[in-house]
Amino acid sequence: MSKPKVFEKPVGVKDYLPGAVKKLKNIEQKVLQCMEGWGYQQIITPTIEFYDTVGAASSISDSKLFKLLNNKGTPLVLRSDMTAPIARVVSSLLKTEELPLRLSYHANVFRTIEEEAGRDAEFFQTGLELVGDDSAEADAEVIALSIASLKAAGVNRFKLAMGHVSFLNGLLEEKLAGRELEKQSLRNSLLKRDYVGYREYLDKLDLAEEDKRALAELLRLRGGEDTLQRALQVTQHELAKQAISHLQAIWTLLKAYDVSDCVVLDLSMVGDFEYYTGMTFEGYASDLGFPIVSGGRYDKLLAQFGRPAPATGFALKTTRILELLGLDVTLPTNQTLVIYNAYRSTDAIKSAAKYRENGHTVIMAMKQKEEHIEQLVVRTDEGLFKYKGKLYNQVEVLE
Amino acid sequence: MSKPKVFEKPVGVKDYLPGAVKKLKNIEQKVLQCMEGWGYQQIITPTIEFYDTVGAASSISDSKLFKLLNNKGTPLVLRSDMTAPIARVVSSLLKTEELPLRLSYHANVFRTIEEEAGRDAEFFQTGLELVGDDSAEADAEVIALSIASLKAAGVNRFKLAMGHVSFLNGLLEEKLAGRELEKQSLRNSLLKRDYVGYREYLDKLDLAEEDKRALAELLRLRGGEDTLQRALQVTQHELAKQAISHLQAIWTLLKAYDVSDCVVLDLSMVGDFEYYTGMTFEGYASDLGFPIVSGGRYDKLLAQFGRPAPATGFALKTTRILELLGLDVTLPTNQTLVIYNAYRSTDAIKSAAKYRENGHTVIMAMKQKEEHIEQLVVRTDEGLFKYKGKLYNQVEVLE
Repeated sequence: MSKPKVFEKPVGVKDYLPGAVKKLKNIEQKVLQCMEGWGYQQIITPTIEFYDTVGAASSISDSKLFKLLNNKGTPLVLRSDMTAPIARVVSSLLKTEELPLRLSYHANVFRTIEEEAGRDAEFFQTGLELVGDDSAEADAEVIALSIASLKAAGVNRFKLAMGHVSFLNGLLEEKLAGRELEKQSLRNSLLKRDYVGYREYLDKLDLAEEDKRALAELLRLRGGEDTLQRALQVTQHELAKQAISHLQAIWTLLKAYDVSDCVVLDLSMVGDFEYYTGMTFEGYASDLGFPIVSGGRYDKLLAQFGRPAPATGFALKTTRILELLGLDVTLPTNQTLVIYNAYRSTDAIKSAAKYRENGHTVIMAMKQKEEHIEQLVVRTDEGLFKYKGKLYNQVEVLE
Repeated sequence: MSKPKVFEKPVGVKDYLPGAVKKLKNIEQKVLQCMEGWGYQQIITPTIEFYDTVGAASSISDSKLFKLLNNKGTPLVLRSDMTAPIARVVSSLLKTEELPLRLSYHANVFRTIEEEAGRDAEFFQTGLELVGDDSAEADAEVIALSIASLKAAGVNRFKLAMGHVSFLNGLLEEKLAGRELEKQSLRNSLLKRDYVGYREYLDKLDLAEEDKRALAELLRLRGGEDTLQRALQVTQHELAKQAISHLQAIWTLLKAYDVSDCVVLDLSMVGDFEYYTGMTFEGYASDLGFPIVSGGRYDKLLAQFGRPAPATGFALKTTRILELLGLDVTLPTNQTLVIYNAYRSTDAIKSAAKYRENGHTVIMAMKQKEEHIEQLVVRTDEGLFKYKGKLYNQVEVLE
């Protein structure tokens, strides 16, 4: 274990320079404003939570949690997502508030990473939770708002894939009742999107050809509204049929929201998070291989915090969206340099104050008497002024 | 060590509910906007840093740092302030940028606390650093901007106390050369603002009466510009005289900024942070006993990160300012409830979209056919509508 160099930072965490911060803040502000228009109010929770409460309820595997001890030796974690902390707040500070509750957030979350993986150990999420409403209307609201949020962030080319935990559960239960190992193997292949592995495993299974065909058909249950009809032909299981009926209701509402063309059904989708109990969805930008939003229904989590209630929500992967959008390269506006000889400092201060009152950004720079302004400030091809590596729209000289 | 209850969070960390978040975001935005007008650009650094680099350079005592290990066993810390991380960035990512650099931030910082003390373990700071300028003009800019920032945040009644590390160092060196223990004892009393203890210790010192008088006089070196003249009468030490001359230059500039009436000189002030090398200041609101801003010059810190440069800056204690200002209790505006029977969901969705386009916040609520709108929605004395604990300016019913 070598000592880090003075200028190094830990693997997986980032510095955001002014250009990136401007863009990030802009995404944050636009998305939260969009959510506010739908009645979602922002809350902030601590970075540090108890390991035994929020840590245990987290959707992230234990080995990926950042753990630390407080000065009494109680185990703590850095939050790995915002869903569990919000469940805690709904069950404590907001205990007497009537449901449904609509809450939004913008927060950094933490997950330990393999140094090699090149993933982030700290990243931003902007998301929301709708707590206390188990209807298809609530799920549709959340999906439609995730689409509105992506558009507000400036992402225009994307697709959401929507599935339902119970369809897969019902289908597997119907075809492989009691065979937990086999179910888990198939599920794992789906989670990894290893469809070749899924088929190979299925081929070798001791199972009636008809059931094998049904399970193989699962991989083709992707697409538009017709997917729901095709799904009903591979299973009679009550859970699965209810799931399809719920998805049908959501789809009808998404058409009313005029967003169904952004959504594809994918009944082979296994949500990343174990706490999902119903509809789940993930959004992909056409240019990126990993999701930029994920969400779903989690009707059991709140009970862990002592206030049982259905809930549904999503998180935008804000850091990835920032990478997707890139930085604006815009020329400065209203940037004013006030450059002055020492004895004119009072005039310079007064002048800067006036420009600021008029909305200018003003940088003050003192020069030496013997310095020549023509050598200090250079005119650029764009008609701007360059001084010490920075660009200005105008320069005031007080000599 | 008892297990935490499910709804508990660690001592010293907070949940911020929507009213507090609105106020906090407002302070953040106004202050950063003010700083931007003076040419300061926001950066974001990671929550986690190496213990051996930023942790070691931090101004906070080791026992107050939150420590954790990464998966390679390397010691990490949660940042305890932003000055050391920014020094790291200036020395790495911004290494080729010309000085001076003007950088701002809004960040949560972490310090372990005694459970009894009732202080925050995680709190927000909004601040800035001006790197690469050792002039009195730079110090005056930073002080004037701290005042503008407090006003932008909405704090109107406050005073800044300004001192200088070298005045105290020079005076103590002159009167107690080589007597490190005695110097440290007097300094500790000043740091704790234990003026009785300071006098008692001084009384017992084996020291010429004249020197004792000079050291006692230190406690009276507080007030307006005349303080500087009085200070020159108690010491001939070169360091101390230079400090007074620097403070005089700053004071003259603060008059030009028209803010000197917000500032008092306090030459007995000992900056909290060991890295201060020059001017230091602290701001107090008339209603609070603890500082709401603190800052100063630190000309040696950047060298620790491999890019020696003078620097000066400050941090607003944003969480305390939020407590000071309290929450706005304002009635809602443009809050619209669209309440509908299930079969009219499409109409409700279209109607909500129209209201949102016009800047309204719209919450949609599905009602059962047998429910009566008169029982669900109650008119308040203020002429608003109340539904499930929330207030609306208008209600649209689609039955």
